[in-house]
Amino acid sequence: MNEERFLETLFRRLPRPPGELVVGPGDDCAAIADRDNQLLLIALDQLIGGRHYANENNHANQLEPTPPEAVGRKLLTRNLSDIAAMGGTPTFCLTGFAVSPRHRDRSDWLRRVFEGLLQTAAEYRVHLIGGDLAATDRDDVGSLTILGTVPVAQVCRRTGADPCDLLFATGCFGDSLASGHHLDFSPRLPEGRWLARQGIAKAMIDVSDGLLLDSLRLARASRLAIEMELAAVPLRNPQRPPETAAGDGEDYELLFAVAPQRAPELVERWPFPDTPLTRIGSFQANQKPDILDRRGKSLTTARRLGYDHYRETCGNHAASQ
Amino acid sequence: MNEERFLETLFRRLPRPPGELVVGPGDDCAAIADRDNQLLLIALDQLIGGRHYANENNHANQLEPTPPEAVGRKLLTRNLSDIAAMGGTPTFCLTGFAVSPRHRDRSDWLRRVFEGLLQTAAEYRVHLIGGDLAATDRDDVGSLTILGTVPVAQVCRRTGADPCDLLFATGCFGDSLASGHHLDFSPRLPEGRWLARQGIAKAMIDVSDGLLLDSLRLARASRLAIEMELAAVPLRNPQRPPETAAGDGEDYELLFAVAPQRAPELVERWPFPDTPLTRIGSFQANQKPDILDRRGKSLTTARRLGYDHYRETCGNHAASQ
Repeated sequence: MNEERFLETLFRRLPRPPGELVVGPGDDCAAIADRDNQLLLIALDQLIGGRHYANENNHANQLEPTPPEAVGRKLLTRNLSDIAAMGGTPTFCLTGFAVSPRHRDRSDWLRRVFEGLLQTAAEYRVHLIGGDLAATDRDDVGSLTILGTVPVAQVCRRTGADPCDLLFATGCFGDSLASGHHLDFSPRLPEGRWLARQGIAKAMIDVSDGLLLDSLRLARASRLAIEMELAAVPLRNPQRPPETAAGDGEDYELLFAVAPQRAPELVERWPFPDTPLTRIGSFQANQKPDILDRRGKSLTTARRLGYDHYRETCGNHAASQ
Repeated sequence: MNEERFLETLFRRLPRPPGELVVGPGDDCAAIADRDNQLLLIALDQLIGGRHYANENNHANQLEPTPPEAVGRKLLTRNLSDIAAMGGTPTFCLTGFAVSPRHRDRSDWLRRVFEGLLQTAAEYRVHLIGGDLAATDRDDVGSLTILGTVPVAQVCRRTGADPCDLLFATGCFGDSLASGHHLDFSPRLPEGRWLARQGIAKAMIDVSDGLLLDSLRLARASRLAIEMELAAVPLRNPQRPPETAAGDGEDYELLFAVAPQRAPELVERWPFPDTPLTRIGSFQANQKPDILDRRGKSLTTARRLGYDHYRETCGNHAASQ
């Protein structure tokens, strides 16, 4: 069983939540009714040593160890990307860190992790309001809970696309690990806020586990298919085949549905000259949610759709479907 | 450096938070202004395999493995104890779980963990609204973020005690691991709510890391000393010396300051016949915050004050002071 199916099965069993839970589990963030027609956004994500960053003393794979400041930065930025995908503004965070004994100087390593976390928090005006430290026998495991806010009328969910809507993406895809993008990306907060304020993104998700896998999640949420033009997908590394880049993951870009009549306005008024904006597909009614090529052939039967952090350790790289 | 000092140093460096943060880091929960004169309470805590519960295949120490349902229960209840310490009512939770490959059947183990978590959530009317699953190379690491609510006027903080206030405690202390209490305790939510509503607890904390260590935290928050009558502390196991029991930790009891003139009312009206209520000391002005015996001798110079989950793995059991 993979993470997605495990959580889906779990979430189906949950009792009916109270009315103030406006967005329940299964989106990028949960959303709770707050004061002044705002929603409180909340999400939790983990960062695993040796998986999401290179460990110190990692002789096995000869990787340069990730600087601890970059570990702290990534712990926050990958959570900020979830706030961006809802059109929100981040506010507060809490973090738990279980530290490996393998660091040369554990206290110094952890101090530098928090150095990076706090610097990034200041950059995005997020306040750290709680934490817990523990120790593990082997891998570091960090977790961060991010809070944010968004006006009720503007919140972007995964659901909400209609047939004929166009699929747009920010930025470039693929090769995130090798290029270092997974450590130094800027979460698309201004872009997400702008799209939400303009009411342009009808459905939105952030691409963390791979373009194909996260597109499929977006398609499923609206029970539609997406016809994707893989050739149109902007690549971080043009040497990399698009179908590989689309499974790499850790892009932290936004993927969103736009009504065809609003597409010209989006392209014309897009106020982020440094952020590529590309139409990479369109939504279609279909018997089952899927990602199709131009000829209607499924792209999700590929061996590897994206990154399933839970399943990976079983040594099983099969598609998450 | 221990967890407490690490976090204190960290928190001192944090920028001034916005006005809606009513209780910042360093208490059992942070508290954010919410609608209708309520505060949103939020806290994060971790649960480490082999530390907070016995692993499967743990040949080293011959412990019976903890049933996974009890792991899920404890992940939630120890967080509920933090809500209880603020006088709050829990509402929502999110959980991250990084699973060890050492379980005989990892999916089944995790399914049973969530079985226990969800059953406990239903028991306490808490809704699971988000989660993240990952895998580790060795130990399980779970984290849970708990949300709750409390009227602004009723919130109980660690700070607020005055000289001559009396120190009361719920329940019994010590021997939590051997007795299994750490797995099957009931967080003191009704007791905490009642104390908050009556305005009886002037300062409150939950005892998770040891009676002495958490008493010291309570004393420090009000810059007072506590004169503690160790002989009066109710023990779970009467065979265990009180000074040892006071360092065992994982009691998940409430410890709170009461004005002397309200103590008779507290004792008379205490509506929880199954929950022992004991006066175990009093607050005093002192040059430095400390826990003293009747003759004014410090009790915190003992070799082991309580449980520091971060420092323990260094093999250093010295007091956290």
